[in-house]
Amino acid sequence: MSFTIQNVLIPTSEGYQTVNVQIQNDRILAVTSPCAQGSAPNLEVIGTAIDGTHKLLLPGFVNAHTHSSEMWQRGMIPPVPLELWLAELYEFAPLDPEQAYLSAVGTAIETLMTGGTSVVDHLVLIPGKEIETIAAANRGYREVGIRAFIAPLIQDEVMSAGLPTGGDEVSHGSYDRSTKETLNLVQEAVEQFHRPDEGVEILVAPTGIQLCSDALFEGCIELSDRYNLSRHAHLLETKAQKLLADEKYGCSAVQHLKDIGWLSEKTSLAHCVWLDEHDIKILAETRSTVVHNPLSNLRLGSGIAPILKYRQAGVNVAFGCDGSASNDSQDLLEAVKIGSILHSVTDPDYQHWITPRQSVEMAALGGATGLNRADQFGSLEVGKKADLVMYDLKSLSLLPRTDPIGLLVLGRPVNVVSHAWVNGKQVIADHEICNINVNDLKEKLFDQSEWTPKRKSIAVSETEARYRSVMGLSGNSIGYS
Amino acid sequence: MSFTIQNVLIPTSEGYQTVNVQIQNDRILAVTSPCAQGSAPNLEVIGTAIDGTHKLLLPGFVNAHTHSSEMWQRGMIPPVPLELWLAELYEFAPLDPEQAYLSAVGTAIETLMTGGTSVVDHLVLIPGKEIETIAAANRGYREVGIRAFIAPLIQDEVMSAGLPTGGDEVSHGSYDRSTKETLNLVQEAVEQFHRPDEGVEILVAPTGIQLCSDALFEGCIELSDRYNLSRHAHLLETKAQKLLADEKYGCSAVQHLKDIGWLSEKTSLAHCVWLDEHDIKILAETRSTVVHNPLSNLRLGSGIAPILKYRQAGVNVAFGCDGSASNDSQDLLEAVKIGSILHSVTDPDYQHWITPRQSVEMAALGGATGLNRADQFGSLEVGKKADLVMYDLKSLSLLPRTDPIGLLVLGRPVNVVSHAWVNGKQVIADHEICNINVNDLKEKLFDQSEWTPKRKSIAVSETEARYRSVMGLSGNSIGYS
Repeated sequence: MSFTIQNVLIPTSEGYQTVNVQIQNDRILAVTSPCAQGSAPNLEVIGTAIDGTHKLLLPGFVNAHTHSSEMWQRGMIPPVPLELWLAELYEFAPLDPEQAYLSAVGTAIETLMTGGTSVVDHLVLIPGKEIETIAAANRGYREVGIRAFIAPLIQDEVMSAGLPTGGDEVSHGSYDRSTKETLNLVQEAVEQFHRPDEGVEILVAPTGIQLCSDALFEGCIELSDRYNLSRHAHLLETKAQKLLADEKYGCSAVQHLKDIGWLSEKTSLAHCVWLDEHDIKILAETRSTVVHNPLSNLRLGSGIAPILKYRQAGVNVAFGCDGSASNDSQDLLEAVKIGSILHSVTDPDYQHWITPRQSVEMAALGGATGLNRADQFGSLEVGKKADLVMYDLKSLSLLPRTDPIGLLVLGRPVNVVSHAWVNGKQVIADHEICNINVNDLKEKLFDQSEWTPKRKSIAVSETEARYRSVMGLSGNSIGYS
Repeated sequence: MSFTIQNVLIPTSEGYQTVNVQIQNDRILAVTSPCAQGSAPNLEVIGTAIDGTHKLLLPGFVNAHTHSSEMWQRGMIPPVPLELWLAELYEFAPLDPEQAYLSAVGTAIETLMTGGTSVVDHLVLIPGKEIETIAAANRGYREVGIRAFIAPLIQDEVMSAGLPTGGDEVSHGSYDRSTKETLNLVQEAVEQFHRPDEGVEILVAPTGIQLCSDALFEGCIELSDRYNLSRHAHLLETKAQKLLADEKYGCSAVQHLKDIGWLSEKTSLAHCVWLDEHDIKILAETRSTVVHNPLSNLRLGSGIAPILKYRQAGVNVAFGCDGSASNDSQDLLEAVKIGSILHSVTDPDYQHWITPRQSVEMAALGGATGLNRADQFGSLEVGKKADLVMYDLKSLSLLPRTDPIGLLVLGRPVNVVSHAWVNGKQVIADHEICNINVNDLKEKLFDQSEWTPKRKSIAVSETEARYRSVMGLSGNSIGYS
């Protein structure tokens, strides 16, 4: 399978140029070298010709952190901090692998329609149906055709252990699966579903220090080394987690994760809101990646991650939507925009602010780097995987013509992706998803849900008083939901 | 002209109910009273029947601060603070009333497609063609059918006077039109274009304390009182403006504006980022409105406006997109989302955070209140103007069904407005703009622009060294553009 995109605009270091791009099988075969302004691009057509006139071609972006099954609860949970939000989320989490399949499909479609060609799904596993959940997501991603990094979310401590004690003696029950069984489960997932050549990888992905033992991290490191798996976890999303790390380790969470060998160029870490200068230095030294999820950090009041500091320290940064119960969307362009402009208020010197071209590089190459796959995709280079997105520059939201990348990042593009390819296979054509009937998906999502503006979370009621006390919030619980 | 929307979902205090809504001429005539769950709504159909099944009906929102002609430069200006951004903006501002017409049309369409039925256009006037500019915007808004509050942007001091001096002796030239002539121009605009019954109002709108004399404010107050015009201005958008106010008045800008009589229930003030507790008290006492423009405040690094404090002090808050060279879009739902979730990071107590239902009220009734027109529109009440928006709850971005208002505010809705009416006249039907050929508009925007990723701003080069010195930024100018 070969094709050639003709007369398409691509960014150069100084501006833009119009080129032809040849794709053979899953790879970029050639890109025309710059030619004199006004003259036609000079690369012959191989395979199918695709008209790129008035379109912009970019490498596909990476939705570098999400939880697909949260789609079933998007729009639902009121504005509360992570610890209370989590209690409600898990109380009402879907229990049906068919739902896990549908939300993986929905997540893939929204990611593709907003410039993404890869998704990292920190997948919440249905208790007792763990492998079925992974199988369902795997099926969804393969059907849509997105490049999928499925990161089964594991833990080996109970939810209540995720809150700092504030010095009180608190006893927790034990988690309902042993660390060993959990690691076996990941190994089984790797054997069944890890197929890098087919566009699906399994990651080792303990949820984070707040609910995982050192033994779980160490078992994951061993699997990561044995199978060359990328590593993924949450890190210091909230102030409560920072307090917890101090109680648990007597040192910063980052220092501890370094000491046990978790941090590496294979490691991407979601959120990273509450790190200090010493922690940042460690991330840089270990070549770990920060996945910035600006929208959920705002919605949950987690804070503003120090992204400009990461960039100045040389830490690689990628963008994620986070699960759509905390965002509540999978619009990757929105995450890129807000994750870029948000930081201008943190540093008065505009020379440090993120430019639209830097944002695009973070979203594409930054994402690939975080997965330790920058040699494979993330830029428009000959020999790389053809994970490509073409934007329609005649869309109203990209007019009038000014700077295409400026419009894409700083504007609010709507329905702008006209074509997309993953691994050289077309997944969007003429603004439509190719491999899935979206109307059928909508009907199923509609039929399997109902408008439920109010529901009462018992778990939140149980957690709220303790949360307010530990975090030093005055006043009583209000039973918000 | 009458019509009835049947079987449509509207919010109630506790949840949602399905109702029929009768509209006669420009007003809401009746809404069915709650009926038992499961039984059909019981209001007869008058006029045309509109099917509201699986749709949500809300009052139209107000895009309470924008500058329409900035559309010609959206995506273009690099990330720099307001004072440098303004220098570049004005150097390349459009000079042609036909362009002002097209950008008013584009602004109206993007606002309508994202839930707005009113727009406040703080309109930049083309030098020497001031009345023609207003006429062009007026024509655009009337053709599209949006409710328009045209606020001709006036000043009587030169641009360089807008930067604090830092104690240096700085002399400025005089502005090229006298204060008296400027006030005459506003009066002429009122006489020619102020037609509240037809959905167009003229506002008195000095740009702000940074470029306006007391005489200009006082002349505007006189016109506002004489013609019952709403009042609009920027207020303390940047730290530089706060420094300037201290130099200019020896007291806070808010105190000074109160002393000269500018603040009132007719007054809406864009940005309000750098106010202190005393200032906030004055806004509450004078019943002035804050227009929150979260996206431009981030993009320009202006800061995070203390919106939670305003709300706790009882200050009315509305949302604006701001001009689309500083946002760079007119997606009102995006401004509502970010303007709501942004503030959770400013206060650890989630009991103060903004809920989606509060956001909707701010966007609709808050906007109307800021224009002193809350008796006319901004809520679904019998007798009010039929400024209505119907959202398609079967859009992918509003699925699965959970809480419709939660999805609308916290999600990233795309193409969700299926129908809209202003003054009882239909402006959107079946997801399409009714009164304008959008393809023609796109062709014109395309033809009158070009992809220009780089341009050199002389004004910025001239301003940058002084800006860095006054703001205490170390290092040299880099001639960013």
